[in-house]
Amino acid sequence: MKCRVCRGEAVIDVRRHNANFCVEHFVEQCERQVAKAIDAFSMLAPGERVLVAVSGGKDSLALWDLLIRLGHRAEGLYLGLGIGEYSDVSGDYARRFATERGLVLHEVDLRRDYGYDVPTAAAATRRVPCSACGLSKRHLFDEVARQGDFDVVATGHNLDDEAAVLFGNVLRWQTEYLARQLPVLPAGNGFPRKVKPLVRLSERETAAYCVVTGIDYQVDECPMAEGNRHLGYKDVLNDLEARSPGSKAAFLASFFSRGHEFFRDAAGGEQETLHRCAECGSPTTGEVCAFCALRARVVGDTPVTIGRKD
Amino acid sequence: MKCRVCRGEAVIDVRRHNANFCVEHFVEQCERQVAKAIDAFSMLAPGERVLVAVSGGKDSLALWDLLIRLGHRAEGLYLGLGIGEYSDVSGDYARRFATERGLVLHEVDLRRDYGYDVPTAAAATRRVPCSACGLSKRHLFDEVARQGDFDVVATGHNLDDEAAVLFGNVLRWQTEYLARQLPVLPAGNGFPRKVKPLVRLSERETAAYCVVTGIDYQVDECPMAEGNRHLGYKDVLNDLEARSPGSKAAFLASFFSRGHEFFRDAAGGEQETLHRCAECGSPTTGEVCAFCALRARVVGDTPVTIGRKD
Repeated sequence: MKCRVCRGEAVIDVRRHNANFCVEHFVEQCERQVAKAIDAFSMLAPGERVLVAVSGGKDSLALWDLLIRLGHRAEGLYLGLGIGEYSDVSGDYARRFATERGLVLHEVDLRRDYGYDVPTAAAATRRVPCSACGLSKRHLFDEVARQGDFDVVATGHNLDDEAAVLFGNVLRWQTEYLARQLPVLPAGNGFPRKVKPLVRLSERETAAYCVVTGIDYQVDECPMAEGNRHLGYKDVLNDLEARSPGSKAAFLASFFSRGHEFFRDAAGGEQETLHRCAECGSPTTGEVCAFCALRARVVGDTPVTIGRKD
Repeated sequence: MKCRVCRGEAVIDVRRHNANFCVEHFVEQCERQVAKAIDAFSMLAPGERVLVAVSGGKDSLALWDLLIRLGHRAEGLYLGLGIGEYSDVSGDYARRFATERGLVLHEVDLRRDYGYDVPTAAAATRRVPCSACGLSKRHLFDEVARQGDFDVVATGHNLDDEAAVLFGNVLRWQTEYLARQLPVLPAGNGFPRKVKPLVRLSERETAAYCVVTGIDYQVDECPMAEGNRHLGYKDVLNDLEARSPGSKAAFLASFFSRGHEFFRDAAGGEQETLHRCAECGSPTTGEVCAFCALRARVVGDTPVTIGRKD
């Protein structure tokens, strides 16, 4: 197996590009794919301050590493979700990555700073844990970005993640979600821009990137995500990809280039007037935002003075 | 296993409806699903003359049978495609069905009437056989409907067929095809209306319908369709359906109810002026229609006087 670029010994084959790469040129290929995504969707302008959502897994650490390599000003944010040993180990990986490279890692701990964690929130709301977890993450990424004057929040969603979400949205023709499913969500209404620079890299490639560049990461999947519908969609798409390499990337890319525009008008909600949440001050359509409502529900009548802003 | 309706012994379970049925109530269920589809999409008006595209397989014979049960004036059209023994046997099933029930079956034979068959057309065009076959079928259904003053052509595409085609169109976001993918295509430009009344029945159900009502049908798949991409899509969707019963029907139904409208403007081609094909007189944008162009290519410089219209 020879590297497509230098004909040296290859370490990885990327079937959808019908190419093999040595370590050096695989890293270059990953950089190029990220740069292409950033460029195609105008995700980042030179000099902007980027807050990377860091979980300690392969995607978020590869993303942070690649953004630094590409010359972006990227700091990390790790959220302690309180999911037992899984969270402890994930945090260690994130901290070690930052320390070894002299990068700035911000930290928020749900339990310490907000009085609850994902398992207790899931129990209190009687919904799947991913629901409370996603809500908390979105809120806190936004809040830390706002308080720290970051221009943009970058998340490590990869090609497989985005294709699976797209597949799920298409299966039920959730046109509002389809309208919003682009790898860049512009800033507005007090929310920072959100970008997904790994949208052209598969999860096999982000894992390989970490291995060949010596990034240690949390290998385990989140124990609370078991049975998550999107994992089933990934299996289905992987089956399709095995039959016909490239179909997953084509599905996602042709949605961006041809499909998405048809759903522009389905987004809705743009006309709603936002005001400040009575609890935390973040923009919301209600009196309190969904995050503060969740927290109140989980911690009961704990005074509102608890929390990070004290 | 008890019938949902009468609590008698059930012969089939329909997982997506979470129901079992005895023979009598399964037949009733199939009738109801077809009546619902006809009604929901205004496929047929009372008294209209329907031409059923009959292949001799389970879907087309079940369709013809169900239309007659529901009181529609339906005649059949069998096309001899010249695919060896497969076509011979298929024709026998179609003729026997019609004869036993005293129904009118029209017949066109590609070789006898037009001087070629699907295998020779595939060889001459160097494309997959399904391409020449589909083109020939569409043309001849239209032509026989026009000559016989039928109001509408009905085809036996079932839920699995339509879901697989939709999936294929979505995978590459072929928005022009998505714009046209409804179970009814209105008449216009000299073409008859086309309808797919089996769109609410899976292929397992049309097969069971034939078995319990004593319809003998061609069980073999077309030998030339092997490796057809849509068969792969069916596997993928069946996998999904096994994980989550009902997802296939929901995918298709929510496309019709929510997704399709977004693609209305993507159809294109409506403004093109049609005129009569110089060879056969059917509406076309070119000088000769695609069917006559195909035939000329396959049979070479055979005089245009050959063929059915002589």
